[in-house]
Amino acid sequence: MIVEGRLPPGSPLPATRSLARDLGVSRNTVVGAYLRLDEEGFLETREQIGTFVAARFKPDTVHGASAQAGLRNEAGAPIVATPPPDPKVLRHRVTSPLEGTAEYDFWIGRVDVRLFPVRAWHRLLTRMLRQPVAHLCQYGDPQGLPELRTAIATYVAGARGIAVDPSRVLITNGIQEGLSLLARLLVRRGNNDVVVENPCYRGASAVFASCGARLRPVAVDHDGIDPAGLPASAALAYVTPSHQYPLGSVLTPERRQALLEWAGNCGAYILEDDYDGDFYYDRSPLPALKSQERFDQVVYLGTFSKSLGAGMRIGYMILPRELIEPVRAAKALLNNCQPWLEQAALAAFLAEGGYARHLRRLRQACASRRDHLLREIENHLPGSAVNGAGSGMHLAAHLPDTLPDAEAIEEAARARGVGVYSVASANAQPFGLRDSPLLKRCLLFGYAALNEAEISDALLSLRRAIDSLR
Amino acid sequence: MIVEGRLPPGSPLPATRSLARDLGVSRNTVVGAYLRLDEEGFLETREQIGTFVAARFKPDTVHGASAQAGLRNEAGAPIVATPPPDPKVLRHRVTSPLEGTAEYDFWIGRVDVRLFPVRAWHRLLTRMLRQPVAHLCQYGDPQGLPELRTAIATYVAGARGIAVDPSRVLITNGIQEGLSLLARLLVRRGNNDVVVENPCYRGASAVFASCGARLRPVAVDHDGIDPAGLPASAALAYVTPSHQYPLGSVLTPERRQALLEWAGNCGAYILEDDYDGDFYYDRSPLPALKSQERFDQVVYLGTFSKSLGAGMRIGYMILPRELIEPVRAAKALLNNCQPWLEQAALAAFLAEGGYARHLRRLRQACASRRDHLLREIENHLPGSAVNGAGSGMHLAAHLPDTLPDAEAIEEAARARGVGVYSVASANAQPFGLRDSPLLKRCLLFGYAALNEAEISDALLSLRRAIDSLR
Repeated sequence: MIVEGRLPPGSPLPATRSLARDLGVSRNTVVGAYLRLDEEGFLETREQIGTFVAARFKPDTVHGASAQAGLRNEAGAPIVATPPPDPKVLRHRVTSPLEGTAEYDFWIGRVDVRLFPVRAWHRLLTRMLRQPVAHLCQYGDPQGLPELRTAIATYVAGARGIAVDPSRVLITNGIQEGLSLLARLLVRRGNNDVVVENPCYRGASAVFASCGARLRPVAVDHDGIDPAGLPASAALAYVTPSHQYPLGSVLTPERRQALLEWAGNCGAYILEDDYDGDFYYDRSPLPALKSQERFDQVVYLGTFSKSLGAGMRIGYMILPRELIEPVRAAKALLNNCQPWLEQAALAAFLAEGGYARHLRRLRQACASRRDHLLREIENHLPGSAVNGAGSGMHLAAHLPDTLPDAEAIEEAARARGVGVYSVASANAQPFGLRDSPLLKRCLLFGYAALNEAEISDALLSLRRAIDSLR
Repeated sequence: MIVEGRLPPGSPLPATRSLARDLGVSRNTVVGAYLRLDEEGFLETREQIGTFVAARFKPDTVHGASAQAGLRNEAGAPIVATPPPDPKVLRHRVTSPLEGTAEYDFWIGRVDVRLFPVRAWHRLLTRMLRQPVAHLCQYGDPQGLPELRTAIATYVAGARGIAVDPSRVLITNGIQEGLSLLARLLVRRGNNDVVVENPCYRGASAVFASCGARLRPVAVDHDGIDPAGLPASAALAYVTPSHQYPLGSVLTPERRQALLEWAGNCGAYILEDDYDGDFYYDRSPLPALKSQERFDQVVYLGTFSKSLGAGMRIGYMILPRELIEPVRAAKALLNNCQPWLEQAALAAFLAEGGYARHLRRLRQACASRRDHLLREIENHLPGSAVNGAGSGMHLAAHLPDTLPDAEAIEEAARARGVGVYSVASANAQPFGLRDSPLLKRCLLFGYAALNEAEISDALLSLRRAIDSLR
């Protein structure tokens, strides 16, 4: 087909596994055929991409010298792609699989545009544009706008008990970029063990894996990650102490101390992801790990993606002194710096108290939505044990034996336009928990983007979906 | 000093080279001492960071088991940092070293905030915020806002002759991020040769080097990169055909064909960095390499950093089909997506013709500034041979023997508050050209941010600075 041009140059070839299945032959047979075609210059294999009909040459030169050159490196050895990392591990999705299609979507991390402080934001942007400064047009500090770093240093001191000066703050395109920068610097040959929670936020585990980390999952229960399961040492430990992703547990003070002890003893960095730490309801939150450390080894990662929305892409890190320069250089090399306009607006919003007022309103709205959801869960999913409702923007309902498995409910609900999620569907990475109740019997609800009326309608539909399974 | 606590945990130790100099001993002596202290658990060495007094342990446990654990990996082997890459290679600066301090700064890449379309931009932002859409608050498509990708596909078709549909466009935080994403995907073990121009844009060469590339510099002359110097094969070639950075040469049609031929024959990707391709004066520009390729192997990198300003951080790539999915996944893993608001405003600005109008005005202003600079160079630097003035936003003046070396002029001018730059100072990476006239006798002027009156004043001061050297 290639010679006859029926498979034109550049055409992707099916994955060996699926082709073997389709043809009903062994995978080795297909792999062997691909290798042969590759050696003969008909194919190109690219790391992390796949196998293609050699796209580089006119068909009539496929057998010519140029073709050979194309598939061989300078030393004359054929270019063989190294095995690509498992795409399942290296992909993660932060947007809902039902985006736009579901009537009511409890996808974790969605925030309600109806609560965005649009007037205040427009006022601030207008002010920033009234006397345009050079920074509107020019590259900024790779570490982030100084006014914003100052405002953030003040904010985390009051809100999270972290006392640092602005030189320790670095602005990123969301927490995800912070994790990417740190993974590239800290995961290195000879010391690539990375402790992650089990289950873990997939956006994090995927980044570490992509940098060659050996993931060391540690079990999570209702008190958060269990230090008893920590390995002897590691390059770093990635944790979500304020509100474990996805289970919602709050790490207990004892375990926080044990975790810091462990890190102190083995020289590991701790990456403290406080993705929804601005949201707490019944009592004030525990201070950040970063504020409790004896040695300068915790990186605190914060974001405005939950309070102002992920569409703004503004996150930050509070860094140990020794990491400031390396991370700053890595950020400059990655993409120079963050956009100016919304950094400047946010700096003023924080400094002038607008952000604190917005956060109070937002917290009240989320608290009442949470209360309403708790009532409706009692009504429609009686007997469920709820975890993680004290803080954050989502909770975990552990289902009673009287109800079907989480995945069955998820599927039935989806058919009725309601998005609820099992752990495996919620951008979380479970490690070998296939049959654990955590995965089979836990249903996750992100409630920040739905108001009380919508929550009631959604839970009613959910109940009907469950009944339809009986 | 460590045991007595006079060097507290976490203190950085001086670089072996400089300590050896200070103490007047051989470097090996210092290295030996550091190694000994490291083995004894007093120090910590971190890749890309440096050597520190072990910060992880209470002084009284420095000799204890925990200390040992901290400095040894699980296998019990001491953690020895692999040699850090040369920071000179891995750093680059896009902001002027004279930022704010110089009265007149010809730093390349600076744009004039006085020419920013501030009214139109405010109108667009206001419109976007009038009926806030969910995207304001939520994660977007990792590939970029669909409306913006559509507008860009239309734009590059008309402006650069590149006919692609929006699915080939991916939005990035500037061209720098595009290079970072591509370097991580395309530079791989067994095929890590990367062709760069000599001299080359340092932001690019540094990114490739940081991903383990073996840089293969190829000479540049007044016709651009010389294909005669291309190696037998490479993973990719990074070029700036419209306006070579930093020398300003335009790649000739013949050489463009030769470059594409070479890439076709050896299967290399071509990264076409069109950082200032929107700016041409005397005649319309040559079509982009991407529009001339026979096979789908050129990545076109464009940006709005020169037309609207780097402060907006919006760049884009036109990708070969086979790279779309891998780059999209890599972008999601890196930082999920770009901010929504200014993407949406820019999409409307492009679609409604405002951008084209702005660009015409901007081109006229830059053309007249360039003409004025050319006259003043003739007046004050008579005999200079100017290159690269036909397009872009900077030009290269090759000095006559009657004038001092570029670096001497640069230094004298700086003392008088004028920023002009030799190649080595202009965020460019020369490879072994130390004594070439290109480096010693070439002075670079970025003229986009200074108006005619400022250019006249600046050149007068420059002339006085040169006289002071005589």
